[in-house]
Amino acid sequence: MSIEPINTLCAQLAKLPGVGSKSAQRLAYFILDMPASSAKELAEAIIRAKDTVRYCPICGNYTDVEPCAICTDEKRSDDVICVVEDPKEVFAMEKLREYRGRYHVLHGAISPTDGIGPGDIRIKELIERVDKGSVHEVILATNPDVKGEATASYIARILKPKGVRVTRIAHGVPIGGNLEYVDEMTLLKAVEGRRDM
Amino acid sequence: MSIEPINTLCAQLAKLPGVGSKSAQRLAYFILDMPASSAKELAEAIIRAKDTVRYCPICGNYTDVEPCAICTDEKRSDDVICVVEDPKEVFAMEKLREYRGRYHVLHGAISPTDGIGPGDIRIKELIERVDKGSVHEVILATNPDVKGEATASYIARILKPKGVRVTRIAHGVPIGGNLEYVDEMTLLKAVEGRRDM
Repeated sequence: MSIEPINTLCAQLAKLPGVGSKSAQRLAYFILDMPASSAKELAEAIIRAKDTVRYCPICGNYTDVEPCAICTDEKRSDDVICVVEDPKEVFAMEKLREYRGRYHVLHGAISPTDGIGPGDIRIKELIERVDKGSVHEVILATNPDVKGEATASYIARILKPKGVRVTRIAHGVPIGGNLEYVDEMTLLKAVEGRRDM
Repeated sequence: MSIEPINTLCAQLAKLPGVGSKSAQRLAYFILDMPASSAKELAEAIIRAKDTVRYCPICGNYTDVEPCAICTDEKRSDDVICVVEDPKEVFAMEKLREYRGRYHVLHGAISPTDGIGPGDIRIKELIERVDKGSVHEVILATNPDVKGEATASYIARILKPKGVRVTRIAHGVPIGGNLEYVDEMTLLKAVEGRRDM
Protein backbone atom coordinates (compact mmCIF):
# COMPACT_ATOMS: atom_id res chain seq x y z
CA MET A 1 0.00 0.00 0.00
CA SER A 2 1.57 3.21 -1.13
CA ILE A 3 -0.67 6.27 -1.32
CA GLU A 4 1.65 8.87 -2.75
CA PRO A 5 0.01 12.07 -1.38
CA ILE A 6 0.01 10.56 2.14
CA ASN A 7 3.65 9.44 1.83
CA THR A 8 4.65 12.91 0.63
CA LEU A 9 2.80 14.56 3.51
CA CYS A 10 4.46 12.19 6.01
CA ALA A 11 7.89 12.92 4.52
CA GLN A 12 7.29 16.67 4.73
CA LEU A 13 6.03 16.52 8.33
CA ALA A 14 8.97 14.33 9.35
CA LYS A 15 11.31 17.21 8.47
CA LEU A 16 9.94 19.21 11.42
CA PRO A 17 11.96 19.16 14.65
CA GLY A 18 10.88 16.50 17.14
CA VAL A 19 8.67 14.78 14.56
CA GLY A 20 9.79 11.21 13.83
CA SER A 21 8.26 8.95 11.20
CA LYS A 22 5.66 7.64 13.66
CA SER A 23 4.47 11.09 14.73
CA ALA A 24 4.56 12.28 11.12
CA GLN A 25 2.16 9.48 10.27
CA ARG A 26 -0.08 10.35 13.21
CA LEU A 27 -0.11 14.02 12.15
CA ALA A 28 -0.80 13.08 8.52
CA TYR A 29 -3.82 10.94 9.47
CA PHE A 30 -5.04 13.74 11.73
CA ILE A 31 -4.78 16.21 8.84
CA LEU A 32 -6.62 13.79 6.54
CA ASP A 33 -9.43 13.60 9.11
CA MET A 34 -9.60 17.41 9.48
CA PRO A 35 -12.30 19.40 7.67
CA ALA A 36 -10.83 20.62 4.36
CA SER A 37 -11.20 24.24 5.54
CA SER A 38 -9.03 23.63 8.64
CA ALA A 39 -6.30 21.94 6.59
CA LYS A 40 -6.37 24.90 4.22
CA GLU A 41 -6.08 27.34 7.15
CA LEU A 42 -3.02 25.46 8.41
CA ALA A 43 -1.38 25.45 4.97
CA GLU A 44 -2.16 29.13 4.45
CA ALA A 45 -0.78 30.08 7.87
CA ILE A 46 2.53 28.48 6.86
CA ILE A 47 2.65 30.27 3.51
CA ARG A 48 1.57 33.61 4.95
CA ALA A 49 4.07 33.51 7.82
CA LYS A 50 6.87 32.81 5.34
CA ASP A 51 5.64 35.54 2.96
CA THR A 52 5.05 38.33 5.46
CA VAL A 53 7.52 37.77 8.30
CA ARG A 54 10.99 39.23 7.80
CA TYR A 55 13.77 40.67 9.94
CA CYS A 56 13.47 44.20 11.34
CA PRO A 57 16.20 46.32 9.68
CA ILE A 58 17.00 47.94 13.05
CA CYS A 59 16.93 45.22 15.71
CA GLY A 60 16.95 42.08 13.55
CA ASN A 61 13.92 40.55 15.28
CA TYR A 62 11.09 38.93 13.33
CA THR A 63 8.46 41.42 12.19
CA ASP A 64 5.65 41.88 9.70
CA VAL A 65 6.08 45.68 9.61
CA GLU A 66 9.26 47.74 9.08
CA PRO A 67 10.67 48.80 11.51
CA CYS A 68 9.21 46.33 14.02
CA ALA A 69 6.63 47.17 16.68
CA ILE A 70 9.24 47.13 19.47
CA CYS A 71 11.63 49.51 17.67
CA THR A 72 8.82 52.03 17.02
CA ASP A 73 7.06 51.69 20.41
CA GLU A 74 7.24 55.20 21.92
CA LYS A 75 6.55 53.87 25.41
CA ARG A 76 9.83 51.95 25.37
CA SER A 77 13.15 53.46 26.31
CA ASP A 78 15.99 54.11 23.84
CA ASP A 79 18.40 54.07 26.82
CA VAL A 80 18.87 50.33 26.97
CA ILE A 81 19.53 47.69 24.31
CA CYS A 82 19.26 44.01 25.20
CA VAL A 83 21.47 41.87 22.94
CA VAL A 84 20.35 38.30 22.18
CA GLU A 85 21.51 35.66 19.73
CA ASP A 86 18.16 34.66 18.27
CA PRO A 87 14.63 36.08 17.76
CA LYS A 88 13.27 33.27 19.97
CA GLU A 89 15.09 34.90 22.89
CA VAL A 90 13.33 38.23 22.32
CA PHE A 91 10.11 36.30 22.75
CA ALA A 92 11.38 34.77 26.02
CA MET A 93 12.40 38.21 27.36
CA GLU A 94 9.11 39.80 26.35
CA LYS A 95 7.15 37.16 28.21
CA LEU A 96 8.61 38.57 31.45
CA ARG A 97 6.69 41.84 30.80
CA GLU A 98 9.50 43.48 32.75
CA TYR A 99 11.96 44.83 30.21
CA ARG A 100 10.98 48.09 28.51
CA GLY A 101 14.08 48.88 26.42
CA ARG A 102 14.98 47.90 22.85
CA TYR A 103 16.56 44.73 21.46
CA HIS A 104 19.36 43.76 19.15
CA VAL A 105 19.34 40.28 17.63
CA LEU A 106 22.80 39.08 16.56
CA HIS A 107 21.55 36.07 14.54
CA GLY A 108 24.24 33.82 15.89
CA ALA A 109 27.29 33.84 18.14
CA ILE A 110 31.01 33.98 17.53
CA SER A 111 32.29 30.44 17.07
CA PRO A 112 35.75 30.05 15.49
CA THR A 113 35.34 26.25 15.24
CA ASP A 114 32.24 26.76 13.07
CA GLY A 115 34.01 29.49 11.10
CA ILE A 116 31.73 32.20 12.48
CA GLY A 117 33.63 35.39 13.25
CA PRO A 118 32.46 38.79 14.54
CA GLY A 119 31.82 39.92 10.95
CA ASP A 120 29.31 37.12 10.38
CA ILE A 121 26.82 38.22 13.01
CA ARG A 122 25.11 41.61 13.49
CA ILE A 123 27.80 43.22 15.71
CA LYS A 124 28.58 46.06 13.29
CA GLU A 125 24.92 47.09 13.33
CA LEU A 126 24.96 47.10 17.15
CA ILE A 127 28.01 49.36 17.23
CA GLU A 128 26.31 51.74 14.79
CA ARG A 129 23.27 51.93 17.05
CA VAL A 130 25.42 52.65 20.09
CA ASP A 131 27.39 55.28 18.17
CA LYS A 132 24.19 57.25 17.60
CA GLY A 133 24.53 58.26 21.25
CA SER A 134 21.17 57.70 22.94
CA VAL A 135 22.09 54.29 24.42
CA HIS A 136 23.31 54.28 28.03
CA GLU A 137 23.35 50.55 28.74
CA VAL A 138 23.82 47.41 26.66
CA ILE A 139 22.63 44.22 28.39
CA LEU A 140 24.39 41.19 26.95
CA ALA A 141 21.87 38.34 27.10
CA THR A 142 23.70 35.91 24.83
CA ASN A 143 23.48 32.26 25.91
CA PRO A 144 25.46 31.05 28.95
CA ASP A 145 27.66 28.76 26.86
CA VAL A 146 31.15 29.02 25.34
CA LYS A 147 29.96 30.78 22.16
CA GLY A 148 27.65 33.16 24.02
CA GLU A 149 30.37 34.07 26.53
CA ALA A 150 32.92 34.66 23.78
CA THR A 151 30.45 36.87 21.94
CA ALA A 152 29.62 38.82 25.10
CA SER A 153 33.33 39.39 25.89
CA TYR A 154 34.03 40.53 22.34
CA ILE A 155 31.14 43.02 22.33
CA ALA A 156 32.03 44.30 25.82
CA ARG A 157 35.64 44.97 24.72
CA ILE A 158 34.42 47.12 21.82
CA LEU A 159 31.61 48.99 23.56
CA LYS A 160 33.14 49.82 26.94
CA PRO A 161 35.70 52.32 25.53
CA LYS A 162 32.73 54.19 24.04
CA GLY A 163 31.59 55.06 27.58
CA VAL A 164 28.43 52.97 27.48
CA ARG A 165 27.55 50.74 30.44
CA VAL A 166 27.86 47.09 29.38
CA THR A 167 26.21 44.46 31.59
CA ARG A 168 25.87 40.68 31.43
CA ILE A 169 22.81 38.80 32.69
CA ALA A 170 23.54 36.92 35.94
CA HIS A 171 24.60 33.30 35.96
CA GLY A 172 23.69 31.20 38.97
CA VAL A 173 21.50 28.56 40.48
CA PRO A 174 18.09 28.45 38.78
CA ILE A 175 15.11 29.25 40.99
CA GLY A 176 13.41 26.06 42.15
CA GLY A 177 16.58 24.11 41.41
CA ASN A 178 18.40 21.90 43.87
CA LEU A 179 22.04 22.67 44.72
CA GLU A 180 22.85 18.97 44.62
CA TYR A 181 21.98 18.71 40.94
CA VAL A 182 23.51 21.98 39.73
CA ASP A 183 26.65 21.51 37.62
CA GLU A 184 29.98 22.75 39.02
CA MET A 185 30.35 25.60 36.56
CA THR A 186 26.94 27.04 37.43
CA LEU A 187 27.61 26.69 41.16
CA LEU A 188 30.99 28.38 40.75
CA LYS A 189 29.31 31.28 38.93
CA ALA A 190 26.63 31.44 41.64
CA VAL A 191 29.27 31.75 44.39
CA GLU A 192 31.33 34.28 42.40
CA GLY A 193 28.21 36.36 41.82
CA ARG A 194 27.07 36.27 45.47
CA ARG A 195 25.44 39.41 46.82
CA ASP A 196 25.08 40.94 50.32
CA MET A 197 21.73 40.27 51.95
CA MET B 1 5.33 41.93 20.92
CA SER B 2 2.57 40.47 18.80
CA ILE B 3 3.48 39.45 15.26
CA GLU B 4 0.14 38.37 13.87
CA PRO B 5 1.30 35.92 11.15
CA ILE B 6 3.49 34.11 13.73
CA ASN B 7 0.67 34.00 16.28
CA THR B 8 -1.70 32.61 13.66
CA LEU B 9 0.82 29.96 12.62
CA CYS B 10 1.37 28.97 16.28
CA ALA B 11 -2.39 28.74 16.85
CA GLN B 12 -2.83 26.55 13.76
CA LEU B 13 0.06 24.26 14.70
CA ALA B 14 -1.22 23.94 18.28
CA LYS B 15 -4.38 22.29 16.89
CA LEU B 16 -2.32 19.25 15.85
CA PRO B 17 -2.32 16.26 18.22
CA GLY B 18 0.54 16.22 20.72
CA VAL B 19 1.53 19.78 19.86
CA GLY B 20 1.22 22.13 22.85
CA SER B 21 1.77 25.87 22.75
CA LYS B 22 5.51 25.48 23.44
CA SER B 23 6.07 22.97 20.62
CA ALA B 24 3.83 25.00 18.31
CA GLN B 25 6.14 27.96 18.89
CA ARG B 26 9.21 25.82 18.27
CA LEU B 27 7.70 24.49 15.04
CA ALA B 28 6.68 27.99 13.95
CA TYR B 29 10.22 29.35 14.42
CA PHE B 30 11.59 26.33 12.59
CA ILE B 31 9.23 27.01 9.68
CA LEU B 32 10.25 30.70 9.66
CA ASP B 33 13.90 29.61 9.42
CA MET B 34 13.17 27.16 6.58
CA PRO B 35 13.92 28.10 2.97
CA ALA B 36 10.72 29.52 1.43
CA SER B 37 10.61 26.61 -1.03
CA SER B 38 10.58 23.99 1.77
CA ALA B 39 7.79 25.78 3.61
CA LYS B 40 5.83 25.89 0.37
CA GLU B 41 6.38 22.16 -0.17
CA LEU B 42 5.04 21.45 3.31
CA ALA B 43 1.96 23.63 2.77
CA GLU B 44 1.33 22.09 -0.65
CA ALA B 45 1.67 18.55 0.70
CA ILE B 46 -1.11 19.35 3.19
CA ILE B 47 -3.40 20.82 0.53
CA ARG B 48 -2.70 18.07 -1.99
CA ALA B 49 -3.27 15.24 0.51
CA LYS B 50 -6.64 16.79 1.45
CA ASP B 51 -7.57 17.34 -2.20
CA THR B 52 -6.60 13.96 -3.62
CA VAL B 53 -7.03 11.44 -0.81
CA ARG B 54 -10.51 10.01 -0.35
CA TYR B 55 -12.11 6.77 0.81
CA CYS B 56 -12.12 3.72 -1.47
CA PRO B 57 -15.78 2.98 -2.39
CA ILE B 58 -15.19 -0.74 -1.86
CA CYS B 59 -13.04 -1.16 1.26
CA GLY B 60 -13.28 2.33 2.80
CA ASN B 61 -9.50 2.73 3.13
CA TYR B 62 -7.72 5.96 2.13
CA THR B 63 -6.85 6.08 -1.55
CA ASP B 64 -5.92 8.48 -4.33
CA VAL B 65 -7.35 6.19 -7.05
CA GLU B 66 -10.78 4.51 -7.23
CA PRO B 67 -11.01 1.67 -6.34
CA CYS B 68 -7.88 1.59 -4.17
CA ALA B 69 -4.65 -0.22 -5.04
CA ILE B 70 -5.37 -3.03 -2.56
CA CYS B 71 -8.89 -3.70 -3.90
CA THR B 72 -7.61 -3.92 -7.48
CA ASP B 73 -4.37 -5.84 -6.76
CA GLU B 74 -4.71 -9.09 -8.72
CA LYS B 75 -2.01 -10.77 -6.65
CA ARG B 76 -4.18 -10.52 -3.54
CA SER B 77 -6.86 -13.04 -2.63
CA ASP B 78 -10.60 -12.32 -2.68
CA ASP B 79 -11.05 -15.21 -0.23
CA VAL B 80 -10.33 -13.25 2.93
CA ILE B 81 -11.48 -9.86 4.20
CA CYS B 82 -9.81 -8.30 7.22
CA VAL B 83 -12.18 -5.93 9.05
CA VAL B 84 -10.66 -2.95 10.89
CA GLU B 85 -12.12 0.16 12.51
CA ASP B 86 -9.85 2.75 10.97
CA PRO B 87 -7.60 3.29 7.90
CA LYS B 88 -4.60 3.62 10.24
CA GLU B 89 -5.06 -0.05 11.10
CA VAL B 90 -4.82 -1.10 7.44
CA PHE B 91 -1.43 0.60 7.44
CA ALA B 92 -0.40 -1.33 10.59
CA MET B 93 -1.49 -4.65 9.04
CA GLU B 94 0.24 -3.92 5.73
CA LYS B 95 3.51 -3.25 7.52
CA LEU B 96 3.56 -6.94 8.50
CA ARG B 97 3.90 -7.86 4.77
CA GLU B 98 2.13 -11.06 5.75
CA TYR B 99 -1.54 -10.60 4.92
CA ARG B 100 -2.49 -10.95 1.26
CA GLY B 101 -6.29 -10.67 1.39
CA ARG B 102 -8.56 -7.63 1.13
CA TYR B 103 -9.69 -5.15 3.78
CA HIS B 104 -12.89 -3.59 5.00
CA VAL B 105 -12.68 -0.37 7.03
CA LEU B 106 -15.72 0.19 9.27
CA HIS B 107 -14.90 3.84 10.09
CA GLY B 108 -15.79 3.41 13.73
CA ALA B 109 -17.15 0.84 16.16
CA ILE B 110 -20.54 0.20 17.70
CA SER B 111 -20.85 2.31 20.84
CA PRO B 112 -24.36 2.78 22.25
CA THR B 113 -23.12 5.32 24.84
CA ASP B 114 -21.83 7.52 22.00
CA GLY B 115 -25.02 6.91 20.02
CA ILE B 116 -23.18 4.90 17.35
CA GLY B 117 -25.22 1.91 16.21
CA PRO B 118 -24.56 -0.76 13.55
CA GLY B 119 -26.15 1.48 10.92
CA ASP B 120 -23.62 4.26 11.55
CA ILE B 121 -20.55 2.28 10.50
CA ARG B 122 -19.85 0.40 7.25
CA ILE B 123 -21.37 -2.97 8.29
CA LYS B 124 -24.01 -3.01 5.54
CA GLU B 125 -21.26 -2.63 2.92
CA LEU B 126 -19.37 -5.57 4.49
CA ILE B 127 -22.46 -7.80 4.34
CA GLU B 128 -22.96 -6.87 0.68
CA ARG B 129 -19.37 -7.87 -0.09
CA VAL B 130 -19.79 -11.22 1.69
CA ASP B 131 -23.11 -11.83 -0.09
CA LYS B 132 -21.33 -11.67 -3.44
CA GLY B 133 -20.02 -15.13 -2.52
CA SER B 134 -16.26 -15.16 -3.14
CA VAL B 135 -15.32 -14.56 0.52
CA HIS B 136 -14.50 -17.62 2.61
CA GLU B 137 -13.16 -15.97 5.75
CA VAL B 138 -13.73 -12.67 7.53
CA ILE B 139 -11.00 -11.79 10.05
CA LEU B 140 -12.34 -9.39 12.68
CA ALA B 141 -9.42 -7.13 13.63
CA THR B 142 -11.40 -4.47 15.50
CA ASN B 143 -9.67 -3.09 18.58
CA PRO B 144 -9.41 -5.24 21.73
CA ASP B 145 -11.64 -2.90 23.75
CA VAL B 146 -15.34 -2.84 24.70
CA LYS B 147 -16.45 -1.15 21.47
CA GLY B 148 -14.27 -3.31 19.25
CA GLU B 149 -15.48 -6.52 20.95
CA ALA B 150 -19.12 -5.47 20.67
CA THR B 151 -18.63 -4.69 16.99
CA ALA B 152 -16.89 -8.02 16.37
CA SER B 153 -19.68 -9.96 18.13
CA TYR B 154 -22.37 -8.13 16.17
CA ILE B 155 -20.70 -8.81 12.82
CA ALA B 156 -20.00 -12.46 13.71
CA ARG B 157 -23.68 -12.99 14.59
CA ILE B 158 -24.75 -11.72 11.16
CA LEU B 159 -22.09 -13.38 9.02
CA LYS B 160 -21.86 -16.87 10.55
CA PRO B 161 -25.37 -17.96 9.36
CA LYS B 162 -24.20 -17.11 5.84
CA GLY B 163 -21.73 -20.01 6.02
CA VAL B 164 -18.61 -17.82 5.97
CA ARG B 165 -15.77 -18.51 8.42
CA VAL B 166 -15.56 -15.65 10.92
CA THR B 167 -12.36 -15.34 12.99
CA ARG B 168 -11.14 -12.89 15.63
CA ILE B 169 -7.47 -11.91 16.03
CA ALA B 170 -5.90 -13.47 19.14
CA HIS B 171 -5.76 -11.63 22.45
CA GLY B 172 -2.89 -12.42 24.78
CA VAL B 173 0.39 -11.41 26.29
CA PRO B 174 2.35 -9.13 23.93
CA ILE B 175 5.69 -10.49 22.73
CA GLY B 176 8.56 -9.00 24.74
CA GLY B 177 6.11 -8.14 27.54
CA ASN B 178 6.50 -9.17 31.14
CA LEU B 179 3.75 -11.27 32.76
CA GLU B 180 4.06 -9.21 35.93
CA TYR B 181 2.98 -6.04 34.16
CA VAL B 182 0.21 -7.48 32.00
CA ASP B 183 -3.29 -6.45 33.09
CA GLU B 184 -5.63 -9.15 34.43
CA MET B 185 -7.99 -9.07 31.45
CA THR B 186 -5.16 -9.65 28.98
CA LEU B 187 -3.72 -12.46 31.11
CA LEU B 188 -7.15 -14.07 31.38
CA LYS B 189 -7.51 -13.95 27.58
CA ALA B 190 -3.99 -15.37 27.21
CA VAL B 191 -4.85 -18.36 29.43
CA GLU B 192 -8.23 -18.90 27.76
CA GLY B 193 -6.57 -18.86 24.37
CA ARG B 194 -3.74 -21.25 25.33
CA ARG B 195 -2.60 -23.71 22.66
CA ASP B 196 -0.96 -27.15 22.75
CA MET B 197 2.78 -27.08 22.23
